[in-house]
Amino acid sequence: MTGDERDSSNYSNWPNRNTLWAETFVDELAKGEVSAVCIAPGSRSTPLTVAFADHPEIRIFSHLDERSAAFFALGRAKRTGEVTPVLSTSGTATANFHPAVIEANQARVPLLVLTADRPPELRDSGANQTIDQEKLYGSAVRFYRDLPEPAADGRKLRSLRVDAARALAASTGTPSGPVHLNFPLRKPLEPIPVSGDVPDGFEDDEPLAATGRDGPFVRTESGRAELDDHSIERVREGLATERGLVVAGPSTTLDPSAVAALASATGFPVLADPLSGLRYGPHLTELDVPVCGGYDSYLDARTVDDWPAPEVVLRVGASPTSKALRNYLRDAVRGSGTRQFVVDPAGEWREATFTASDLVIADPNRLARKLAERAERAERTDSSASEAWRERFRTAETDYWNAVEAAHDDQFFEGTIPGDVIANAPDPATVFVSNSMTVRDADRFGRPRDAGLTVLGNRGASGIDGIVSSGLGVGSTTDDPLVLVVGDLAYYHDMNGLLALSRCGVDATIVVVNNDGGGIFRMLPIAEFDPPFTEQFETPHGLDFAPTADIYGFEFVRVDERDAFRDAYQASLESAGSQIIEVEFDTGTSHEFRETVHERACDAIDE
Amino acid sequence: MTGDERDSSNYSNWPNRNTLWAETFVDELAKGEVSAVCIAPGSRSTPLTVAFADHPEIRIFSHLDERSAAFFALGRAKRTGEVTPVLSTSGTATANFHPAVIEANQARVPLLVLTADRPPELRDSGANQTIDQEKLYGSAVRFYRDLPEPAADGRKLRSLRVDAARALAASTGTPSGPVHLNFPLRKPLEPIPVSGDVPDGFEDDEPLAATGRDGPFVRTESGRAELDDHSIERVREGLATERGLVVAGPSTTLDPSAVAALASATGFPVLADPLSGLRYGPHLTELDVPVCGGYDSYLDARTVDDWPAPEVVLRVGASPTSKALRNYLRDAVRGSGTRQFVVDPAGEWREATFTASDLVIADPNRLARKLAERAERAERTDSSASEAWRERFRTAETDYWNAVEAAHDDQFFEGTIPGDVIANAPDPATVFVSNSMTVRDADRFGRPRDAGLTVLGNRGASGIDGIVSSGLGVGSTTDDPLVLVVGDLAYYHDMNGLLALSRCGVDATIVVVNNDGGGIFRMLPIAEFDPPFTEQFETPHGLDFAPTADIYGFEFVRVDERDAFRDAYQASLESAGSQIIEVEFDTGTSHEFRETVHERACDAIDE
Repeated sequence: MTGDERDSSNYSNWPNRNTLWAETFVDELAKGEVSAVCIAPGSRSTPLTVAFADHPEIRIFSHLDERSAAFFALGRAKRTGEVTPVLSTSGTATANFHPAVIEANQARVPLLVLTADRPPELRDSGANQTIDQEKLYGSAVRFYRDLPEPAADGRKLRSLRVDAARALAASTGTPSGPVHLNFPLRKPLEPIPVSGDVPDGFEDDEPLAATGRDGPFVRTESGRAELDDHSIERVREGLATERGLVVAGPSTTLDPSAVAALASATGFPVLADPLSGLRYGPHLTELDVPVCGGYDSYLDARTVDDWPAPEVVLRVGASPTSKALRNYLRDAVRGSGTRQFVVDPAGEWREATFTASDLVIADPNRLARKLAERAERAERTDSSASEAWRERFRTAETDYWNAVEAAHDDQFFEGTIPGDVIANAPDPATVFVSNSMTVRDADRFGRPRDAGLTVLGNRGASGIDGIVSSGLGVGSTTDDPLVLVVGDLAYYHDMNGLLALSRCGVDATIVVVNNDGGGIFRMLPIAEFDPPFTEQFETPHGLDFAPTADIYGFEFVRVDERDAFRDAYQASLESAGSQIIEVEFDTGTSHEFRETVHERACDAIDE
Repeated sequence: MTGDERDSSNYSNWPNRNTLWAETFVDELAKGEVSAVCIAPGSRSTPLTVAFADHPEIRIFSHLDERSAAFFALGRAKRTGEVTPVLSTSGTATANFHPAVIEANQARVPLLVLTADRPPELRDSGANQTIDQEKLYGSAVRFYRDLPEPAADGRKLRSLRVDAARALAASTGTPSGPVHLNFPLRKPLEPIPVSGDVPDGFEDDEPLAATGRDGPFVRTESGRAELDDHSIERVREGLATERGLVVAGPSTTLDPSAVAALASATGFPVLADPLSGLRYGPHLTELDVPVCGGYDSYLDARTVDDWPAPEVVLRVGASPTSKALRNYLRDAVRGSGTRQFVVDPAGEWREATFTASDLVIADPNRLARKLAERAERAERTDSSASEAWRERFRTAETDYWNAVEAAHDDQFFEGTIPGDVIANAPDPATVFVSNSMTVRDADRFGRPRDAGLTVLGNRGASGIDGIVSSGLGVGSTTDDPLVLVVGDLAYYHDMNGLLALSRCGVDATIVVVNNDGGGIFRMLPIAEFDPPFTEQFETPHGLDFAPTADIYGFEFVRVDERDAFRDAYQASLESAGSQIIEVEFDTGTSHEFRETVHERACDAIDE
């Protein structure tokens, strides 16, 4: 049933109150610039599904597994910054969203969770597929509303439009994050005419409620934290030292040129997390300070014991992936009284070593630009101590990456993969890396490049769940070539997410680093206790992933040495459709070789 | 490191406080007769994993996907009634348990959720894999405890033993259900000696805390609701009618012989849900009242308009699967003032038509036996009206099942599968059916049998998630042949659960009724609205499931007619290992034929 057909009937524009309610809500989302929704099929959610399907400006991505649906939506929202709704029916379907909701909360991703529910009288009544969905995601959402029951009532419909606007504003607020709207709905759920449900002429009697405004019903102008002149000046004074560092943690909202301007102005090297948006990009060519990527290896006691400590550190983004870096910062503060500024636009205390001395509640991009304007460039370039400090990092980087390149030539190991993926990615490209060893290897072996690479991962809660879907969700928003680098456990955990390749029309190159289990546990002391190490921690599964290609319709290639990998990678980037490139490694050998590379790099730097 | 090695060291029996803490807890679970645990690998949970692995009396089922792990544990707990723990590390892993926790809540299954957490000072600090796990499952758990930090402290350890006992008691209370214990743990997580962490001689100084008691630290004797003589008499008087019904809904705790005794004593036909435990079993041979399974078809206005209404209905178990039955009961109360007793041991109001006139808060088995003792058998057998009432159901059943058998011969359709699976299952056998159309077809086409069939499903929240894992969890507790009957969406949703076939050593016959999407939506009015019906509701996926056999190492057979299905089914039951038998159907044809069978059956009964 289209709008035109309805217009020609004797009824009002809407066959029943549910249709009116759902269309009003979806109308408001579209006016709020929502352009896509992820939907898992279900009956109770029918009014909303129909309204989304009827809307010409909203694209639907259909999923069968709600867990994957939510992570796909998370990926889209992460890449675009746009609020991305995900919709399910009532019951346990809603609980399958929970992992992605938590990740969205911690990674500050604007995910809009829409759950259909039974009407209030059926709650706790033994009715089918009826669970307690109230505040289902607890503290993980920015805003929650158990919406009223649909009705052709002006005030109620205006409240619905306001709630839609409010949900969008909360989701994109500071910090951005997930919101949850629960929709109690009563039959008929389909667009079946119900006499009297929506009075004739309702549109004329309640035009504001029925059709809203030209744009959003409520336009939200949202301020961001900015320091006043006195505060700015205090921070600037704190940064006026010869040996400082800018540490950029995972973030999708840092403006590289703003942070680069600050780094140039202060003369501070930038330690750029692979997920910070700072390690890759054209801004690298503008910078005359080192942008570092190898610190996870060389910020080791062997090397840094000879170095002076930084006097000040300015941290932006979330806590860095690198444990070596976090420990280095902690020890600098403990040993040398280094001042550590943590900048967070939401004023959250994301610093778990408890050594930060200054919390700066401000938008990091604006702050960086303001500080850059005020910083004394002269002081920096004239100072030999300042230049020596930069030179340490510049030299360490050069020595480190030379050592890494030589090592890759000596042995093909797990760390080769993220390194080669990033080094040989086209410009532009989008790369999504899974957690556990993969992101650590990307951190250690993904060399900075001045190419337009968008490198993303799920570092909010750092789970191994939902990685395939998150990556494909990211890919669905861009024409960039898309590369996923995932471990075998992450691949297994979200195999269902592979359905999106065909169903959602995403082309990807998926590189599976298969070490048959939890290789990361080799890095932990539990490896010395076997049993239970092998059976309960490393847990080799012996799964053959090649048949996944037959289920989901893509090409599967297995390679076992570097040239073959590079060739397969290149071929995949150049061909249409999706390819899985699996590389099998022995986790023990790879882990030992990581240590070897580390030792060699430290040797090279010490020389 | 084994217990013996530790005993011979100079340290106390425990290398550190985490080991002491985890062993104390696991010791208490074992003393509380926990015999198995499901574990997903992780680091933060190491002390508990090691303690479980060290315990000789607890079997570990290792899983890689936490969602599947929790459903597997749910299946075990459902089949055995024993508290079954599931353990994960911190972070989003815990949220993957949520769907199974909700199902366990609503189906009253004693699931013990154990989540490892970061220590308190790291909460909300930006530390890795640290989320807010407090009250993560909201209202879905019977008992929640954020445990204190481990310490070699007598009072704390006694509190831990008490909490373990309390969790077990809450999980098996009335109603039984899930409980959640959150374990904050600080490094070292491995059984590494930490000097002074557990004082020398701690065992001697605090013997009660350190070693507990011979059995459980606290033995819980738990009463169940029983009516006093006056209340019993009032219920008995209410049941003293000529036309009554016993309606047994889904339950894993109904005692068939108790309910059978009541039915015999009152002379009431039993309408037995396929998941009630009443439709199958040797108790059928003892009964001289009809035990009915075809009511979902013949309790139709066409048939029952000619019948007198029941004067009284006694309901035990959860709300029946059959919507026709629920509507029949509702209409009987509305039209004829039928008295409807709902018996619930927990006093929950599981009756969503809001027509029940009497809530009886009592253990249904004890109540049934007491009522049976008091009921007047003479009155029943002497009454021709009573006999005529039974005869209606007896005749309807005979006519119905004859019509169904004839129909199966005419056309092979979706409904043939659960019917044939149940009719040809060995005695004993365990059959697990998925939700959506499968359980409805089992309801309509699964003829009562006097064989020892345990037929189970997840009807708490009736999700399509976790079905494979739940079924395999059920199978892991018994030597019975295990048959799963699942739709394609349920199979897809929990394909990860297939890993348990090899990893957890479960043999199964899995029958996949593949109608390429959500066939159940054909039964709803939305089928008339296309678009969006096909793309957003029926959602054909076109997946080829045969390659799943290559991933997980089982046999895969595809059949397309009845004899071939029966042969494959028989062959699978007789062979070792696991087999998947896929049967493809056209959903539209099957749906039409369900209607045809229904019409034919009603015709036969009306004649």
